[in-house]
Amino acid sequence: MREDEITGWFRQQRQLSPAEVPIGIGDDMAQIALGHGASVLITTDMLLDGTHFELKTATLEQVGYKSMATSLSDCAAMATIPVGAVVAVALPHGWGGRPLKELHAGVVFAADKYRCPLVGGDITSWKSDGRFAVCVSMLSKPGDKPPVRRNGARVGDIICVTGSLGGSGRRRHLEFEPRVNEALKIVQIADLHAMMDISDGLSTDLNRICSQSGVGALVEAAAVPISGDARCRPDPLDAALNEGEDFELLFTLAPEQWERLDRLWDDPVPIASVGRITDTGRMEIRLPDGPVRDLMPGGYDHLAD
Amino acid sequence: MREDEITGWFRQQRQLSPAEVPIGIGDDMAQIALGHGASVLITTDMLLDGTHFELKTATLEQVGYKSMATSLSDCAAMATIPVGAVVAVALPHGWGGRPLKELHAGVVFAADKYRCPLVGGDITSWKSDGRFAVCVSMLSKPGDKPPVRRNGARVGDIICVTGSLGGSGRRRHLEFEPRVNEALKIVQIADLHAMMDISDGLSTDLNRICSQSGVGALVEAAAVPISGDARCRPDPLDAALNEGEDFELLFTLAPEQWERLDRLWDDPVPIASVGRITDTGRMEIRLPDGPVRDLMPGGYDHLAD
Repeated sequence: MREDEITGWFRQQRQLSPAEVPIGIGDDMAQIALGHGASVLITTDMLLDGTHFELKTATLEQVGYKSMATSLSDCAAMATIPVGAVVAVALPHGWGGRPLKELHAGVVFAADKYRCPLVGGDITSWKSDGRFAVCVSMLSKPGDKPPVRRNGARVGDIICVTGSLGGSGRRRHLEFEPRVNEALKIVQIADLHAMMDISDGLSTDLNRICSQSGVGALVEAAAVPISGDARCRPDPLDAALNEGEDFELLFTLAPEQWERLDRLWDDPVPIASVGRITDTGRMEIRLPDGPVRDLMPGGYDHLAD
Repeated sequence: MREDEITGWFRQQRQLSPAEVPIGIGDDMAQIALGHGASVLITTDMLLDGTHFELKTATLEQVGYKSMATSLSDCAAMATIPVGAVVAVALPHGWGGRPLKELHAGVVFAADKYRCPLVGGDITSWKSDGRFAVCVSMLSKPGDKPPVRRNGARVGDIICVTGSLGGSGRRRHLEFEPRVNEALKIVQIADLHAMMDISDGLSTDLNRICSQSGVGALVEAAAVPISGDARCRPDPLDAALNEGEDFELLFTLAPEQWERLDRLWDDPVPIASVGRITDTGRMEIRLPDGPVRDLMPGGYDHLAD
């Protein structure tokens, strides 16, 4: 059973009231109604030593930054405004206050930069063996536009990504800039149909948009923006499609909206059109030399063998 | 450096705007303003195998229930209404979907019982060695009355607890009923000055109320309600004062409000008056045979050696 299957199973177990939970399990954030038209969105991200970072090579300040940036990227993924975060940690036995202060430095650096204050947390420790884990839960509120979901892609939409993809594991996964401000700026210019952030690789995350929207996609390999780090890899395109932790935005919009966005976009972070939403019901990729092949979700899966 | 010291240090690092964050670090939940008079509260709790439960003896369904009940108890601690929860897990390497379904059963049992839907989560896994951890983050909203904080206890207040204390580790810590409904009922009857839930033991948690309120306390040992499980211990009073994970409510209120509450309270969960808030600036306990001694915080500390 893979991650998306178990997530789907969880979603089926309880029918959530749309009046109380407008957006439930399966999107980048869940939205909860609070009455009188107010609502809040929430995301949670668990980061583990050895899986999402290596304490042998990364500093705790970098880990603190990454843990916040990962959740900020979820706020960006729905074009919502971060309002606050809580941080829970599981400390190896015998750790004291000093490592916590280092972690805190990274957390508040991100909190200050993206105006998302640290408002609370939980400190726990393993009694014997047990490795360091940090879990950030973050709240956001809708901006002027409603939160952008994963399930709204339409046949004929242009598929876009911000920045460049692949090779994040080398260094960028610890230092990336979550696209909070870019997302809010994009939805001011154009109407989006679907959006998410690329955490598990373009192929896996585009598959989530397609599957939740009931559509297919054709990716133009030649148009995929490949990062400098990915270009050093034996197969740069494979790295850009499958490696994950890019934390760039992936979104779809009508062709005339893309024309508008492309014309008016003056931000230093580039946006590339990488393909189209199709009615084939499956994901395909046109290779640089012409042939069209099936595109399989190849990103990381925490439940895969 | 102990937990409360590092928490105090965190609190001092950033001045949070009361307009944006009416309640910040150091209470049972933080409160975030969302504009137009709306606000939401958030708590996060990390539970670890070997620290908060033992997978050798507890089922994953029990662990799922406890993880939700722990956060629900934080909602109760401020007399707020739970509105939704997210659950993040760190899975030992090689776990599949089945253990997640067992955990889910316990999570949704609590979610259904306390009308606090599971709205999302995060599934991660250790790449090699690493033990099971679960982190619940929960949102609530204020009821008719403002959230009750820890820092409002006044000299002369009566100190009360719900239920009975001690011996929770035997069985009750996996099955306890968070006092969500009782808390909302109490604030309908009486005006409280301070409240929290007892997670680390009466002595430790009362010390938090005293310290944050700038007051002292005198506990009457003979009035402390000792649980059946604690009565089997070599020192039942010590168990009731220090063992923790009782998840009962601890609150203070003016004597006339206590008279009113005591007269009108018709709930099966008992409330006991266990002492008074004093101006001594320290915690004391009157032993059953008469002498008054200092009461030291003796509960569990995750940063203690």
